[in-house]
Amino acid sequence: MLIGKVVGSVVATRKDEKLGHQKLLLVQVHDHTNKPKEQYVVAIDAVGSGPGDMVLYATGSSARQTTITEGRPCDAVIMAVVDSWDLGGDNVYEKWKS
Amino acid sequence: MLIGKVVGSVVATRKDEKLGHQKLLLVQVHDHTNKPKEQYVVAIDAVGSGPGDMVLYATGSSARQTTITEGRPCDAVIMAVVDSWDLGGDNVYEKWKS
Amino acid sequence: MLIGKVVGSVVATRKDEKLGHQKLLLVQVHDHTNKPKEQYVVAIDAVGSGPGDMVLYATGSSARQTTITEGRPCDAVIMAVVDSWDLGGDNVYEKWKS
Amino acid sequence: MLIGKVVGSVVATRKDEKLGHQKLLLVQVHDHTNKPKEQYVVAIDAVGSGPGDMVLYATGSSARQTTITEGRPCDAVIMAVVDSWDLGGDNVYEKWKS
Amino acid sequence: MLIGKVVGSVVATRKDEKLGHQKLLLVQVHDHTNKPKEQYVVAIDAVGSGPGDMVLYATGSSARQTTITEGRPCDAVIMAVVDSWDLGGDNVYEKWKS
Repeated sequence: MLIGKVVGSVVATRKDEKLGHQKLLLVQVHDHTNKPKEQYVVAIDAVGSGPGDMVLYATGSSARQTTITEGRPCDAVIMAVVDSWDLGGDNVYEKWKS
Repeated sequence: MLIGKVVGSVVATRKDEKLGHQKLLLVQVHDHTNKPKEQYVVAIDAVGSGPGDMVLYATGSSARQTTITEGRPCDAVIMAVVDSWDLGGDNVYEKWKS
Repeated sequence: MLIGKVVGSVVATRKDEKLGHQKLLLVQVHDHTNKPKEQYVVAIDAVGSGPGDMVLYATGSSARQTTITEGRPCDAVIMAVVDSWDLGGDNVYEKWKS
Repeated sequence: MLIGKVVGSVVATRKDEKLGHQKLLLVQVHDHTNKPKEQYVVAIDAVGSGPGDMVLYATGSSARQTTITEGRPCDAVIMAVVDSWDLGGDNVYEKWKS
Repeated sequence: MLIGKVVGSVVATRKDEKLGHQKLLLVQVHDHTNKPKEQYVVAIDAVGSGPGDMVLYATGSSARQTTITEGRPCDAVIMAVVDSWDLGGDNVYEKWKS
């Protein structure tokens, strides 16, 4: 999984019927020090995350292992909202402080 | 999923029988700010998209989860036409304005 | 899928029994403007392509969806020979002219 | 698989129910000479590894082949703690010396 | 598949039970001209290869299609030892000459 920040959302009316009506969020990838990278992914949201949330997303066939993405043409899913993480013993991110 | 623009199409007569006669479109990848990247993919079109459309495509085994790509040797599928997206609260792309 | 050019072949006698005796071709990846990239892949040939052919190849589990690659330890398959493609309305490649 | 070092952990309370309560570790990727790379992954720990351990991790659907990751929306798993490795006949890393 | 050279091996005692006792080899990726790249992978050896051998390896779910890797948390497998390959009609590598 990689860490990312929810920075937007994508609207699509014409879509494959198996995609369903799931929320499509724009996630900017962050590195382990919480620096934004020039990399993004559009992911289905399985956990009710919102703008500004730091999240974990899974890709590939693993993105279809949540109840709401099973069997869908979806290769990226937000499967957790990050509360905090540490690196080398130091806290890098703490949700309640942000 | 990543966002891309349909910029062309590929014609192939000699192909694996399991590929079928699906439309093969050339998609240029765009970044989250809608800037074209030097990256492309050839994808089967599952939603009837056309030249100039901004689309979402899925890769890997997820590309075989639409009705028309199931069981095919296809690792990229256009599974949605993008109407609009926003980034940090600002609209980046709006189909009806383009 | 990506576009590539068949530029060589690989010979291997000692191989996993499930790989079979399929032709292993060296494919150089080309970009959407038909410029060769410094990237290659070794792929099983499912369509009888030959040296100089422009081809489409699929990777990952999708590479095992042809009749000749099913169940094999193969992560790349040539599943089509490209006749032509266009980019922004202009023809980029035409097999019969090359 | 790639070699990495366990450099931290990630806490997430709101997560997909199928993810379970597995430990989420932050792994920094190392190259074959044991130099840290500017690349990381968040992986589920299947082997009880801890901070500072050099580990092997597997990605994609292979990350779901351990008993504790089966069926989970998880695309990276630590499936081994590295004791040592050699490169060109020379020992690069030896756990008991570090 | 990509071409690589077996440059070392990895020892791991604490590992997921489903990984088994397979040999874990360090493979340095080579390009199509046989130049080593700054890229490596740790792969399970399915063909009895040894130090200095040029090999083909497969990744992802395809790495689990050999008899010895089936069902294992393994995302890279050596599935062939390369005897030779040619590029543009010229021999690039010949095992018996090396």
